[in-house]
Amino acid sequence: MFETPITVVGRVITDLRRRTVGNQEVISFRMASNSRRRGADGTWEAGNTLYITVNCWGKLVTGVGAALGKGRAVIAVGHVYTSEYDDSNGVHRSSLEMRATSVGPDLSQTLVQIIEQAPAATKEPATGPEEPEAEQEPGAAKEALPLSA
Amino acid sequence: MFETPITVVGRVITDLRRRTVGNQEVISFRMASNSRRRGADGTWEAGNTLYITVNCWGKLVTGVGAALGKGRAVIAVGHVYTSEYDDSNGVHRSSLEMRATSVGPDLSQTLVQIIEQAPAATKEPATGPEEPEAEQEPGAAKEALPLSA
Amino acid sequence: MFETPITVVGRVITDLRRRTVGNQEVISFRMASNSRRRGADGTWEAGNTLYITVNCWGKLVTGVGAALGKGRAVIAVGHVYTSEYDDSNGVHRSSLEMRATSVGPDLSQTLVQIIEQAPAATKEPATGPEEPEAEQEPGAAKEALPLSA
Amino acid sequence: MFETPITVVGRVITDLRRRTVGNQEVISFRMASNSRRRGADGTWEAGNTLYITVNCWGKLVTGVGAALGKGRAVIAVGHVYTSEYDDSNGVHRSSLEMRATSVGPDLSQTLVQIIEQAPAATKEPATGPEEPEAEQEPGAAKEALPLSA
Repeated sequence: MFETPITVVGRVITDLRRRTVGNQEVISFRMASNSRRRGADGTWEAGNTLYITVNCWGKLVTGVGAALGKGRAVIAVGHVYTSEYDDSNGVHRSSLEMRATSVGPDLSQTLVQIIEQAPAATKEPATGPEEPEAEQEPGAAKEALPLSA
Repeated sequence: MFETPITVVGRVITDLRRRTVGNQEVISFRMASNSRRRGADGTWEAGNTLYITVNCWGKLVTGVGAALGKGRAVIAVGHVYTSEYDDSNGVHRSSLEMRATSVGPDLSQTLVQIIEQAPAATKEPATGPEEPEAEQEPGAAKEALPLSA
Repeated sequence: MFETPITVVGRVITDLRRRTVGNQEVISFRMASNSRRRGADGTWEAGNTLYITVNCWGKLVTGVGAALGKGRAVIAVGHVYTSEYDDSNGVHRSSLEMRATSVGPDLSQTLVQIIEQAPAATKEPATGPEEPEAEQEPGAAKEALPLSA
Repeated sequence: MFETPITVVGRVITDLRRRTVGNQEVISFRMASNSRRRGADGTWEAGNTLYITVNCWGKLVTGVGAALGKGRAVIAVGHVYTSEYDDSNGVHRSSLEMRATSVGPDLSQTLVQIIEQAPAATKEPATGPEEPEAEQEPGAAKEALPLSA
């Protein structure tokens, strides 16, 4: 409740990266969202781009792993934070990360077929209490580097 | 930019409803989002529910029509507003509506297969300038009634 | 975390209403947000309006009570849900409510002077665990009616 | 509409920085938002921190300049994007920036007195069409560096 919520709509720009943190699986990818704004003459103008690394835990791992990949049009919903680390040259850097709670293909760009859905009764938060806050570990943050586009 | 953005994650609770407004197709459905919050003892407690009618125009019509239906776990992204109307008994009512910009199945609950995706070059806003603001017409608002769960 | 976050920017359209629920004070007000979108010719067009009741608990009560009132330009941040109730004529109704976490005057419209600020160390959530979920009580929901504009 | 909306609630961590871009004034500051999440035992745990540079144009300049400063508890609403630049050592860097549409002191932390408010009739977007997209200029991005905390 006191985290910063964000929804990003854009494209996956890296391959999915799977890893295990503790005994939890996580899938991460980078995405880019190109903005557009309508100018004074009514035409749409390309604006700034937002880049973010999306981390998918828990119940998201199966669905994201089965459906998404580089180039996919995607909606990512979650909480956003800054990850700070030193790169391999000792330069201090920061990257923008999302702990996703829901992710889906963007149906304004994509045709999908639904194969299976968990029954409503089993609905649980995608990111539960038992999950380690792996993003806060310096090592995990450093590992995230290859995702940068 | 001066509309109120919202992202709702929940379930579709009605059948999809297709209609034509002017020469534009629109698909509408109602969704419900059940909230959960962690109480003082750490357990998750059921909270309030949000109900909203989601209106899908333009490029969303094909993808939503092909994939979604009652019961589906869904992410809806767009702008939110109040629709006011008089019901068939002459009672003044209001309902919460979203003009969706992106909609997708929630991969934390769903397995999907991606069939086809529009190339990045053709990316355009799902709700463009030529689309009528049908929600503002009293008739359209009244028509939306049967969607109420 | 599994509630629906929202930020509404607009005007307070009712007087503030103070009441006590259990042993907690709450201030409620209605606000309206008028949207604008740029049309195909580049001019700004008035769009739909969002109406919402904002409920301020805990640490928000003092600051909101001291500064805000009808007509004020305001930013309200919190979680949104549907409150359902029967009105005095027995008609079933619903209204859109926010449990606010942060509220402030909109400095794009307002000049303010800051009088005092809590030290950072005392920062706590504005809506803590001990607060009753008063919005869920039928009586409280019915009481909210006079706020409707 | 196709930009990524965000609301950040936190503290101003730098002095305000005023500059003129073209014939427009802009005020920028860095802010930090410390997240909290409730753990499995119900206690609040400190989580990740989000750092962001907030750029205030147009009608925001007067109100923000008069009221805010380092240490203030603040709500910032706007659109978020990545600014890329090379630092003075030739290292390629990126920073997270917001183009603010509304900013206000957080009344859950602050007592304020309202001095003056623009009449509703004059309400215009804080960031209008005539404003240069200064953030996209390489020079402007480089200038933003001293704001980093």
